[in-house]
Amino acid sequence: MKQQGAILWLTGLSSAGKTTIAQGVAEGLQKRNYPTELLDGDIVRTHLSQGLGFSKQDRDTNVRRIGFVANLLSRNGIIAIVAAISPYRQVREELKQTTTNFIEIYIQAPLAICESRDVKGLYAKARKGEIKNFTGISDPYEEPINPEIICQTDQFTVEQCVNQVLHYLETQGFI
Amino acid sequence: MKQQGAILWLTGLSSAGKTTIAQGVAEGLQKRNYPTELLDGDIVRTHLSQGLGFSKQDRDTNVRRIGFVANLLSRNGIIAIVAAISPYRQVREELKQTTTNFIEIYIQAPLAICESRDVKGLYAKARKGEIKNFTGISDPYEEPINPEIICQTDQFTVEQCVNQVLHYLETQGFI
Repeated sequence: MKQQGAILWLTGLSSAGKTTIAQGVAEGLQKRNYPTELLDGDIVRTHLSQGLGFSKQDRDTNVRRIGFVANLLSRNGIIAIVAAISPYRQVREELKQTTTNFIEIYIQAPLAICESRDVKGLYAKARKGEIKNFTGISDPYEEPINPEIICQTDQFTVEQCVNQVLHYLETQGFI
Repeated sequence: MKQQGAILWLTGLSSAGKTTIAQGVAEGLQKRNYPTELLDGDIVRTHLSQGLGFSKQDRDTNVRRIGFVANLLSRNGIIAIVAAISPYRQVREELKQTTTNFIEIYIQAPLAICESRDVKGLYAKARKGEIKNFTGISDPYEEPINPEIICQTDQFTVEQCVNQVLHYLETQGFI
């Protein structure tokens, strides 16, 4: 049987835990020998989207671009894990319709919690106005309406969230 | 044994025959059930590089971006076939050094032959000055110095060139 690929699309606010959970899921899959690629938003911006900013149009272009690449992997039997804020609902829905095995994973935590974590110190800068168009502060985040998985990172540990994703993949027959 | 991926990088002038040979090679590989993705320059520009122009810098960014994506595929056991003018030697060499199984294929035909074919009518426009920075006319093409394969499309049929590439992949153990 040919290995089935998938796109695990982790969306959520900055500091919600997307990258951490994505890395945990990637490790879990690699341990089980599933071909896996982690496409982290920040890294992907460097390689695919230099020159794009944070307007709605540029964000949508960035998300479509990551989706295009993730789909090349997914349709070839690879599990592509994407960690990207991807704040706009419509373009995520568009990808769900046009790509192979798109699984929307909402990495959810209240804004106040994310801001208190402020992993990269970006919320502080956004509050001071040093960063404009910052999702959650000066730019919208449109929550998923019907995501396949919701990881509530203020209520569960990283390990629990990672296991939640892996368990979903098992029950759906991806692994 | 895990399937080995590769990047078949077809470089050459416009109308040299890159897309035609790339499609023939893709078909040949798909018939033999090898996981294959064709990344055609024009299509990739739409999905990955909208907004980029044809300055040296933008061309190099475009080529690096295609290389990044092709490498994600190659290192996961997929044969990525790239058809892109990619006129500058240095960035092709850079990809050869930094990617998995980069195979440079020079699709070669004299400029006069390419211009007489003018598949997309672009040479005519370039001669009239309607297109600027046109490779071979008003922009340089730096020939590969030591490509793995040279397909001379003015001397051999498409089928012969396709078989030349497939034969190389056989002898090198990729298929």
